Amino acid sequence: MCSLPSGGADGTKGKHMSMRMAISAALVLALATTAVVLAASASQDGAWRIGPRTLPASVDVSDVMRESLLETPAPDVEAAKRLVLRTAEEWEAWVRPRDVATAEAARAMAEALSVRVQEDKIGGANVHRVTPPDIDDRHKNHLFVYIHGGAWVLNGGEAGTFEPVIIAARLGMPVISIDYRMPPRHPAPEALDDVVAVWTELLKERSPASMAMGGSSGGANITMASIHRFRELRLAFPGALYLGTPCVDINTIGDSRFINEGIDRSLSTWEGVPSDAGALYAGEYDHKHPHISPIYGDFAGFPPTYLISGTRDLLLSDTVRAHRRLRRAGVEADLHVYEGQSHADYVAVWNAPESAEHYAELNAFLLKHLPSPRAPTPTLPPDTTKDIEVPASAAY
Amino acid sequence: MCSLPSGGADGTKGKHMSMRMAISAALVLALATTAVVLAASASQDGAWRIGPRTLPASVDVSDVMRESLLETPAPDVEAAKRLVLRTAEEWEAWVRPRDVATAEAARAMAEALSVRVQEDKIGGANVHRVTPPDIDDRHKNHLFVYIHGGAWVLNGGEAGTFEPVIIAARLGMPVISIDYRMPPRHPAPEALDDVVAVWTELLKERSPASMAMGGSSGGANITMASIHRFRELRLAFPGALYLGTPCVDINTIGDSRFINEGIDRSLSTWEGVPSDAGALYAGEYDHKHPHISPIYGDFAGFPPTYLISGTRDLLLSDTVRAHRRLRRAGVEADLHVYEGQSHADYVAVWNAPESAEHYAELNAFLLKHLPSPRAPTPTLPPDTTKDIEVPASAAY
Repeated sequence: MCSLPSGGADGTKGKHMSMRMAISAALVLALATTAVVLAASASQDGAWRIGPRTLPASVDVSDVMRESLLETPAPDVEAAKRLVLRTAEEWEAWVRPRDVATAEAARAMAEALSVRVQEDKIGGANVHRVTPPDIDDRHKNHLFVYIHGGAWVLNGGEAGTFEPVIIAARLGMPVISIDYRMPPRHPAPEALDDVVAVWTELLKERSPASMAMGGSSGGANITMASIHRFRELRLAFPGALYLGTPCVDINTIGDSRFINEGIDRSLSTWEGVPSDAGALYAGEYDHKHPHISPIYGDFAGFPPTYLISGTRDLLLSDTVRAHRRLRRAGVEADLHVYEGQSHADYVAVWNAPESAEHYAELNAFLLKHLPSPRAPTPTLPPDTTKDIEVPASAAY
Repeated sequence: MCSLPSGGADGTKGKHMSMRMAISAALVLALATTAVVLAASASQDGAWRIGPRTLPASVDVSDVMRESLLETPAPDVEAAKRLVLRTAEEWEAWVRPRDVATAEAARAMAEALSVRVQEDKIGGANVHRVTPPDIDDRHKNHLFVYIHGGAWVLNGGEAGTFEPVIIAARLGMPVISIDYRMPPRHPAPEALDDVVAVWTELLKERSPASMAMGGSSGGANITMASIHRFRELRLAFPGALYLGTPCVDINTIGDSRFINEGIDRSLSTWEGVPSDAGALYAGEYDHKHPHISPIYGDFAGFPPTYLISGTRDLLLSDTVRAHRRLRRAGVEADLHVYEGQSHADYVAVWNAPESAEHYAELNAFLLKHLPSPRAPTPTLPPDTTKDIEVPASAAY
């Protein structure tokens, strides 16, 4: 196999380099179809100032999605930046009414879909068992271990069951949703400790390969960090991962954090609450510790992973950074990016065809990677067999 | 399998609808972590006015890629918009020096990599046969049928061989690059006619499944349109497709055409040359004809397809729209999106590790989907076998 020259120990590096630069110079001229890259305002750090623009509602989306976009005013970035929560009490006062509303939505959704949601404890941690009315035969031996999102501070208690209810119903799969401890009272590593406690217990009764793990946003962050933690603890990995628009880095890194500022209608900007919540969660940890910003961990041997983002998602770059890390580590990883979608719009606009499509794709991915249930062991009818004497030699 | 309620013939639609709206309303409040979606400036058509922003050079990229970004000034959108070419002569005068420079780069690259480039004709159409010094054993029976990009007007002649030279060298695979006829003198359908002519001839000597087809940008547009055309003509499809940052729609549709205006350093804006070149190419055709804007065609039965784009790509939306159309048609389609990359940066910054990574991914995809060459037929050593008499019965 031939490879491109990159210079070597034979003293040709200079020659190759200058040829490469000559080619690059020709390409800058030739390949840019508009070819109007003028010497403008490149500052020393290479930051570009991008002017204002008009963004029409997305066209190539479903009617439900388009209607939802037409009804949403442009995100107010400045107002979002002004929202600063200073004390534990201020955080709790901000979180509480939001969780009450989401819990109410989750309850209504569960009722409408006949999904059963039961509080429980596993390994000392709080969980919800989320069970669809009909478990798909193909998922009979499977379990979805769900880790909720909400910027590490939102969606505690029943509020965390909204997406699990959708997953249970859409996939016909039982879900255990971990109601992990959160800041401001419980910064890292307590959320990870709860995941480890639940996982350790589940491993006692099930094969790791029969379980999927994942969630959206902050939940996908904790999912990735959990795999890093499992490696340290020599715990087996799940059979597949779900990373819905993951936050892989609490540092303000990634093109889309800048490009989609004021465009993502859910996370209008990283400044303010999302960034502050990340710091609150990190507590004493370095912000590049793999338990906090899991992109800085080792992805070798990660389970097959399904990832979803959207063209308006503030965390599009986070999602594609995770996808590339996984691919570089040789992991099977499927990336899906939806036109017109902001951060986790597949949850917020759960009634859009695109949301159904996403969960159908996720389901196909899990069915491919979790082991098929064993064919049931045939049972002989007891009435006709109970009196048959078995000679010792029959066992050979 | 349970599905979410969407209203039905049982008269419950109103109830479901109102519940759904109640849930959605709760979600808008609860799921947006910043929760500052204020009633701002939503105009009647739902277009958002997005303010100016600062975009730092991408961080999570290779040193080569980052250096390249730091050296590039912010794209000058206004200058690009001012560039209007009115006559065939103006187009040709604009194209000529660019093609001369690209041809020179392609020649230098071919020489550096010992790739042979020979002019030829197949079925009356001009092609270049692009052959690497060593064909990988695994590609012995394979052929890459390449369709060059360049907004339907650029990269005629040897200039069209730049990416084929890289593909031949990186994949160790022989390439036939079609030098199709282009506007301003030859609008649609002449490019497609040339592809059909070449493909028809190739089908006489090779199995369709042993050939990949594809290209970047306008080349990926023509690739997709060719498959639509092959279906009409009942010609067999290739074994796999390569769609590098495809233009799937010459109409100004797609979030990224707006979001990445002034951010994509290659295609700084769709207005001006790219849009005008699309119209020039379309000629008498409706701009939504599947031969011109292939997103409007039927994707059932398309070959397995590899797609690549970047977070700064003006055609990111085109790429993900194609990916979703393929997936909805049940086609195996792998999407790759790279942090920091503008339109076809994997070609422009061909010496970045990300470019090597892209072609390695493409190679793995083709090796998976094109049939493995037959194991070589074992040959008996002639010296020891030539005198063996073979009885007639040995043939039974």
